[in-house]
This record gives sequence, C-alpha cells and structure tokens, in this order.
Amino acid sequence: MTASTPDLPALLNRQAAENELFALLRIPSVSADPTHTADMARAAEFLRAKLAELGFTARVDATRNGDKAGHPLVYAERLDAPGKPTVLIYGHYDVQPEAPLEEWVTPPFEPTLRNGRIYARGSTDDKGQAYAHVRGVELLLAAGPLPVNVKFLLEGEEEVGSPSLEAYLRDHAGELRADVIVISDGSRFAPDVPTVTYGLRGLSYVEIHVQGANRDLHSGSYGGAAPNPINALCEIIAKLKDDQGRVTIPGFYDGVEELTQEERDMWAKLPHSDEEFAASIGVPALPGEAGYTTLERLWARPTLDVNGIWGGYQGEGSKTVIAAKAGAKVSMRLVPGQDPERITQLIKEYVPTIAPAGVKAEVRGHHGGQPVKVDLDSPYIKAADRALTRMYGKPAAFGRGGGSIPIVATFREVLGAPVLLVDFGLNEDAPHSPNESFAVEDYHNGILTSAYLLQELGK
Amino acid sequence: MTASTPDLPALLNRQAAENELFALLRIPSVSADPTHTADMARAAEFLRAKLAELGFTARVDATRNGDKAGHPLVYAERLDAPGKPTVLIYGHYDVQPEAPLEEWVTPPFEPTLRNGRIYARGSTDDKGQAYAHVRGVELLLAAGPLPVNVKFLLEGEEEVGSPSLEAYLRDHAGELRADVIVISDGSRFAPDVPTVTYGLRGLSYVEIHVQGANRDLHSGSYGGAAPNPINALCEIIAKLKDDQGRVTIPGFYDGVEELTQEERDMWAKLPHSDEEFAASIGVPALPGEAGYTTLERLWARPTLDVNGIWGGYQGEGSKTVIAAKAGAKVSMRLVPGQDPERITQLIKEYVPTIAPAGVKAEVRGHHGGQPVKVDLDSPYIKAADRALTRMYGKPAAFGRGGGSIPIVATFREVLGAPVLLVDFGLNEDAPHSPNESFAVEDYHNGILTSAYLLQELGK
Repeated sequence: MTASTPDLPALLNRQAAENELFALLRIPSVSADPTHTADMARAAEFLRAKLAELGFTARVDATRNGDKAGHPLVYAERLDAPGKPTVLIYGHYDVQPEAPLEEWVTPPFEPTLRNGRIYARGSTDDKGQAYAHVRGVELLLAAGPLPVNVKFLLEGEEEVGSPSLEAYLRDHAGELRADVIVISDGSRFAPDVPTVTYGLRGLSYVEIHVQGANRDLHSGSYGGAAPNPINALCEIIAKLKDDQGRVTIPGFYDGVEELTQEERDMWAKLPHSDEEFAASIGVPALPGEAGYTTLERLWARPTLDVNGIWGGYQGEGSKTVIAAKAGAKVSMRLVPGQDPERITQLIKEYVPTIAPAGVKAEVRGHHGGQPVKVDLDSPYIKAADRALTRMYGKPAAFGRGGGSIPIVATFREVLGAPVLLVDFGLNEDAPHSPNESFAVEDYHNGILTSAYLLQELGK
Repeated sequence: MTASTPDLPALLNRQAAENELFALLRIPSVSADPTHTADMARAAEFLRAKLAELGFTARVDATRNGDKAGHPLVYAERLDAPGKPTVLIYGHYDVQPEAPLEEWVTPPFEPTLRNGRIYARGSTDDKGQAYAHVRGVELLLAAGPLPVNVKFLLEGEEEVGSPSLEAYLRDHAGELRADVIVISDGSRFAPDVPTVTYGLRGLSYVEIHVQGANRDLHSGSYGGAAPNPINALCEIIAKLKDDQGRVTIPGFYDGVEELTQEERDMWAKLPHSDEEFAASIGVPALPGEAGYTTLERLWARPTLDVNGIWGGYQGEGSKTVIAAKAGAKVSMRLVPGQDPERITQLIKEYVPTIAPAGVKAEVRGHHGGQPVKVDLDSPYIKAADRALTRMYGKPAAFGRGGGSIPIVATFREVLGAPVLLVDFGLNEDAPHSPNESFAVEDYHNGILTSAYLLQELGK
C-alpha cells in the first residue's frame, strides 16, 4: 500500500453506513405518487444535511418541467482540490411505487437485513448505490483531503422519466461543469465481475403508417384487387432486414464504428452462455445479425425491432375485412457512428420506395437518443479499471449496455463530459419488483469502490 | 310470342303489386331487435296468407338454433306440375335495423315513392326482391297453370346470420328437395346489365400465432438477440405470397379450375373500368395476381388477405418492448377445385416451416366455406339466360361473386341442388344504409323476370 492510499477498508464504519442508509430507506419517497410530496422533501433534506455535514456546499433546489413544479433536487459541491479533476456524481433518491404490497416479505419502507441483504424499496435503485458514494466521500475525508473536486446531483424524478432534469442541467450547465460524470444506478455483469459500462446504444423510434383504400372493404368483394395495407406493411417490415439479419435501409451502416479486436476478445472472456441466455427467456434460438456474438449484437451492433403492430380486426372470431390502414412502431438501436436524426431520415426516405403498389406508406419520427461511448483508452476508464482492481483483486470488465439511458445522453449532450457507469448492484436485486434488495457486501464494496475511484481519478 | 308465353306484361297489375309490397314494408320486421318479435310474426303471417291465397300449401314454422328459439320461417309449396322441375325460391322478410334514423329523408317503415324509387327499409333487401317472386307466381297463375313446381322458403333471420337455417334445412331436407334454387337478394352488375351470378368463392379463415420469449422484453437489453415475434410474423406473412401476387403455400393451386376462354371473353365485355374501380375506393393501383384481369382475380382466382394483425404496444407514444407474441387473422378466398379443409391443413403445415429461427408459429383454423359454381352449360343457366333475354331484350351477363354467401353454400351442401342468383337490385339501392330504396321499374321487371324464369325452367 502506497502513501497515497491509506487503509480505507480499516476506516469503514459499517454500522454507521448501514444505519444511515436504513434511515434514508424509511422515507417513502415515491415520486409517482402525489401523496408522498412531503416525503420527497424529507428525503432531499436528509441528503442535503448529510452532505453539508461532510463540508459540502449543499442545497435543495426546486425544479420545473415547463409550467409544472417538479420534485426537489439536491445539489452539493466541495471544490477544494485545485488543479485536480472535477467529478460529478449523479444519483436519485426517488423510488418506484411499492405495489404489489402483498408480495413483500417485509414492508417496503421498513428496511430489513436478511440473508446478507438489505430488503427495502430503493435499496439498490438507487438510494443504496447513491448513498455508497456519499459514504465513499466520507471515508476519503476520514483519511485526508478529497483527491478530486466532487459535485453531487441527486434528483427526485428518475423513476418518472426525469422530466425536469434536462432544463435543470441547461440552467446550471456552468455550475455543473465536470471532467467526468459517475453514475451507479444499475447492475454489474455478474456477481463476480466488477463492471464498467463504457457505452450505450442510441435510438431512433418511428411509426410506419400504411394507407390502402379510403374505407374498410369486404374481403370477399374486393380480395384480389384491392390493396391490403396489412399485407403491405408486413412486406415492408420483412424487407427492412435481409436474410443475414442486416438492416437493408441504404446508408444505415455508414459510419458505424466497428468493434476492435480488443473489445471482441474482452467480451468473449465474459461469463456468458448463449444457452443460458436463451433459456432465461424461453426461446430455442437467438437470431440476429450474422458474424457477431450475442454480446456483440446486444452492445455494439445496431438493430431494428418492431415494438408494436396493428390493423384490421383484432377481436374474437372472424371478420372478413380488408382494412383501410395499418401501422407499426419500429425502433432502431444505434451505435457510435450513427446519428438518430440521420437514421430517422433514412428510414423515412426508404420505406415509401419499398411499399407495394396501391398503398401509401409513410414514416413518422417519434424520438431518438444519441449512442454514447467513452474511449477505452481514456484516463477515466483507466482510473475505473485501477479502482475496481484494487477493490476486487481482479481487473474490471468493460462492457456496454444495449439500451439507452436517456439521462446519460442528456448529460453527455448538455454537459459534454464523459459518463462512467460503475454499477454496484446486480440483476438479482430485483429493482422495480417486490422484495427489492441490495447485498450488504455490495453496499460496503460500493463505498470502498467510490473512494478508490475518486482517488484514482485524482491521479 | 309463342303459345306457351301469354302476354305477361299485359297482365301485370302494377298498382296491386306496389300496394301489397308497401303493406309488407310497413311491418318493421327488424330481426336484430327483440322488441320487434311481434312484427316478425306479422310479416311471416302476411306472406303465409298471401301464398295460401295463391293456392299454396303455406305455413309458418317455428325455428330453433340449439336451445334458442329463432324467428319464424314461411314455407309454402304448390306442386301441381307433375314431371316438371321443382324450383325452390329463397328470400328473407327480415330487415336491417333502421339506425341512424335521422338520416332517412322519409321514415324507414313508411314506404314512399319518390323519383321512381320505393324508399323503405327492406325495399330491396330483401322484401322487394322476394315479393317480386310472389307476384311473379301470381302473374303466371293469372295466365294459366304453373309451368314448374314451386316451393317458397322465406326466412326471418338472414340479417342476423341465419343461425337457425342450417338446422331447418337438415330437418326438412326431404320436403325441401328441389332441382334448382333461386335467390334474388343482391345486385346485378350494372343498371343495364341483367346478371346471373353462377359462382361464389369459398373461404378458409385462420389465425396465425407467433410466440417469441416467455415474456415481454426490453428492446434495449434484448434487441439484436431475442427473437421478435412481430418481425417474424411479418416475415411469415410476406412469404405467403410471391412477387407475382401468387400464394406460395405448396399445393394451394392444386386442382384450381382454370377460367375458360368463354368466361374470360364474357367478362372482358362487361362494363368494368379499372380506373373507375380504383377511384371508387381511393387507391392508385389494383395489385393482384399477375396474368389475370381485375374481374378474373375477384371472381375466379383464390386470394390471401390479412384481415387483422396485432402485437406489442399499440398505444400513444412509444414503448421499447419486444413483445412475447403476435398474431394475425388471415382469410383465403377459394375457387372451385379448392377444398377449405384441405387448404386450412396446407397452411397449418406450411407456416411453421417458414417461421424464422427462435419463434414458434402456429396456425389455428377458424371456419371455412365451400366455393360454389353452376356449370355454364347447365339447363338452369340456359333457362335464366333465355328469361333475362326475354325481359331485357339482351342476353344476360354471367358473372360470379367474390365473396361467400354462407346460405348459398349451405343450400348447396344440404339440399345438393344448384343455386341460381338472379338479382333484381342494384348497389345504388343502398341496402343496409339509410334511405334504402328499390327502383319501382326494377320491382316490376323482377316480377316479370321471375315469371319468365319459371316458364323457361319448365321447358
């Protein structure tokens, strides 16, 4: 152990860390439920007071989403490491509703330690993981001055889609400026795999609308001559991918950043089994783009999935109708090198050209999200790797996420800083479900990891 | 004019024919509305009494549909032409509901003569057309003995799907035996085109169900690896037809009766315009099987149309979901030479073989109907041709119908006799719509046509 790394594990006050988290978990800060407005304020004040106690300039800010008042947001900063990087830690103190209450073994807002796990709503998502950073900073302060400048942004609306966050970020962009943003609000790859998520896919979400005749027609009187917009829609959708699982929209793959051999090798070593993955969702095969492994397809390749389709008669029994129109919701997951607006434009131009004769096909853009990626060679990634290696005695896994986390793209876009996703939780924590829990060891490891990460980022 | 054809037009009593039809039209015999039960009985009795007056053995029979009582049915016969064919005339005295009442210019059950048309609910569908046969028989009786044996079957449930008819036919199959069945319950091809419909397409109606994962999945976390049942369903549906508009199910066309050159020539002469047809439904093109005209495709070629499709999220906005399952309702119109049960079996076997990897696709049979066709060389067709030629001074057009008329297939199946569809109405009569009407000339021409047809069938 070097001079710059005092024995942090020895300084851990596990009992105090648990007591404080339990106190926070007892506050039923359900953002979706207006009857909990006072609880939201209490939870925010709890965090503000704690951060103030740690020497932070801390405040609770009101938020607005257009004309509507949002839930309060805690902002705190301690900028006493001149010349060192500034790290912004994002988390959220709001939680999912507790329903169905009857399925909880112990009440959702009476945190209980059982089988090495803290059972409570918000234990892993995200009070436990966010508070690990608060206690991580406290741990560092017990050992000496902070190695970096630290800013906390703890919001109260993540579980309702963060409607006020973007405006807040824009309004406070100067104050929130940071070199790197750290978020711990998810799951690591596997129990024994400390993970940094260094990329997320983006999104282009559209609707395809197909119009046939000017009214529903009788399929007996018109079948064989009238265009059928449902058949046409199916034909269009089938044509959007070739038999290799590749999207056929011209230009779709232009600029797509190819996986490096380093990434492919790294992911091939992760404990993943196609058989187990397929069995976990009950399917006999995992179809997808030829030439890529499952993890490569999920994390680094764009996709096209129909998310919904409708048209004609959907009720019981039969109706011999040729519908006037049909539609589908289609999302494309995008990867670095693809721009959502450009992809939306490409599919808008392409679909009408592959529509069968007799129908009018139109694509309407819904919303999009930029793909994000932190360069694996960046000093932040290296720092996270060192921190996790110190913590777990083995190098970190660097994976990506298949989904989009809208706030990540928003942070990236508004604040311009890279976002490191360093998750302390696990899928088995069952966030959003009854009996949500957080392994008590994962909580304490999270506290240490946070401290190590801030140290390494300061180097 | 030969000895066997007294001057029937001179014997027409137009005023009496109109008065009686008006009396029948004043009875609001709406089969769908239980408050009209007494009216149903009144209408049936009206017809029974009239046919008894014409010397028929006439009765009103109760009907049953399983445990449920149906509306009464009028059965009448006059079998005093030994050695001559027996003609069963089918019609229905029930009518569609009158809603929306406010759109009627004159009340639906107060028949009004206006612009040469009789406006009333049921005027064309089917009281007017059925009563034309009653008056046609009366006309023949004014001129001498009936040239054929005549049976009338006038039901009261056609507008609610004839739920009791099949059981009635089976129970009375011996009594109802006939050489030919005549139905006038539709529209002729065009105002100046007397038409015999000598064939109808059959039907195989199925549902396709596609199962992907055992639950809905997040399209971010799983997109690119999990099978998508909606995409798969679209692929399956797209594969069911080739780029020439032909159905790809192996064996689908086996046994299909090809059009004769006579039929093609005959239909090519009908007043049909693809442009007008396309404009009438507001489409820029009439796609379909290559190598056939529109009328050929509608009347004599099998089709495959999706009648409904569903899967995933259909609401407002977006949801990034990969649905667990998707489904579609698919109907195939069949032509002579195709058997609905065999076709259903073929698609049941075929669809699983073209399902993409990872999903399970299954076809469930719904219901079917046999195609029907009367041979153009049959004496009944020749008789109808002569009757219409006498009436209109030009040969009849022989067309077919694209839809199935379930009762026609039922008659064909249970009684085994050919069915001639000789329609007196027109599409512009607006059956089922407000302001339904029947041209008074078409009514009187129908009476004469009925008389001529019975004479010609007796030759």
